Amino acid sequence: METVKLILQYDGTGFSGFELQPGERTIRGECAKALKKVYKRPIKFYSASRTDAGVHALGQVISFKAPASIPLSKLPVAINSVLPEDIRVIMAEKAGKGFNARFDSKAKTYEYLIFNGAITPPHLRKIAWQVKPKLDIAAMKKAAKIIVGKHDFSSFCAANSDDKNFVRIIHSFVIRNSSFIIWDGQKIKVISIIVKGNGFLYKMVRNIVGTLVEVGLGKRSPEGVKGILKAKDRTKAGRTAPAQGLCLIKVWYN
Amino acid sequence: METVKLILQYDGTGFSGFELQPGERTIRGECAKALKKVYKRPIKFYSASRTDAGVHALGQVISFKAPASIPLSKLPVAINSVLPEDIRVIMAEKAGKGFNARFDSKAKTYEYLIFNGAITPPHLRKIAWQVKPKLDIAAMKKAAKIIVGKHDFSSFCAANSDDKNFVRIIHSFVIRNSSFIIWDGQKIKVISIIVKGNGFLYKMVRNIVGTLVEVGLGKRSPEGVKGILKAKDRTKAGRTAPAQGLCLIKVWYN
Repeated sequence: METVKLILQYDGTGFSGFELQPGERTIRGECAKALKKVYKRPIKFYSASRTDAGVHALGQVISFKAPASIPLSKLPVAINSVLPEDIRVIMAEKAGKGFNARFDSKAKTYEYLIFNGAITPPHLRKIAWQVKPKLDIAAMKKAAKIIVGKHDFSSFCAANSDDKNFVRIIHSFVIRNSSFIIWDGQKIKVISIIVKGNGFLYKMVRNIVGTLVEVGLGKRSPEGVKGILKAKDRTKAGRTAPAQGLCLIKVWYN
Repeated sequence: METVKLILQYDGTGFSGFELQPGERTIRGECAKALKKVYKRPIKFYSASRTDAGVHALGQVISFKAPASIPLSKLPVAINSVLPEDIRVIMAEKAGKGFNARFDSKAKTYEYLIFNGAITPPHLRKIAWQVKPKLDIAAMKKAAKIIVGKHDFSSFCAANSDDKNFVRIIHSFVIRNSSFIIWDGQKIKVISIIVKGNGFLYKMVRNIVGTLVEVGLGKRSPEGVKGILKAKDRTKAGRTAPAQGLCLIKVWYN
């Protein structure tokens, strides 16, 4: 037996999220089927993040113990050949014996994309949130500065969460104008929000983004975020930004 | 009554192509429904290109005559509000009285994307063709030079075409390494093929691309394209490249 670490990419559009749900198409369900086919036995695996329905991943990590029957260099091809094409294994490597993708993660980086304009290009509709009125990015950056650091994030945690400890550390929170390029070298302007933290409560990134957008729309002051944190009350923060704008970029380990 | 020119973008993934087909979701069908809602009467319209199922558009053009009841500046918002979000009107303008998007087009530019590697990123699977073995781009460029100019393109015309005149002029045919940027500034390398011509036979771009890929794989010589053109025989050319790699970039008018 060896401990294997896989990096996955997926287009979250066609999934009811990562975790199993009866009768639903999920990332875990598809991965479990694929691993069972490849190893000819059920494989129990852990994931770094349990992404919600519609959330994408560029660098999800899963880990499991399995017989060393398949060379790791051939594992991505073997698993991809039985996975649906909206999930891809992009890397497989041997991990330390006790490695666990979920419990050993030291930090995660997420990106949230906002299309700030009147007409969302059709190919962006499933990977960005359309906000029509012009956002005040300077105000959003001020609010983001308040978010950085160690705080009790109860106010940004979904009410139906299982979390018990609400303290998390946000290492960085960067908001910038960015561009997409798909066809013809044409640049499509988007607002990119990249946040790195030691851990995230249920829907925390989306609740923070939803609140910052309200700051960007002038509905809240940047300084108001201090009061929201202090309140430890979900009802004090803004709306939850929609899932499709969110992407798990990277999971950090020692 | 005024003559209106609209520029459309669409994600071709969810459509059975542009033209009406009984029981199928088509671009024409969705546009007809939307125009009827906006103008409260059926609107007959022409399109520059009749894109196939799965083909995308960044600059499709349609034209129609309609009552001047809605200011053109408000027309995109009005139509988009009743169109599904995988089609967007990005521009509306008044055209000359006799303007016809189909018959007045002087040239069209298409782009075809190839992902040349082992693992297609999930978000590219519906907009690029995955070719796993490394392509010889220099050989493909040599073949492309032969395609440029005025030729009888019978060998690259799908057998079930209605076309009668098979002579077309290819103004330019550019193959280059390009990049996609979606998340995190990460560049994903793709091969971009941009072709501009005065008109295209049924499946012509995809048949040329399919043949050039066979050149890139070393299955055909670049010079062999001369013989293919001369043969005027579809069976002499290569396979049809899959639809999802193709995008209508721009339609040119005087």
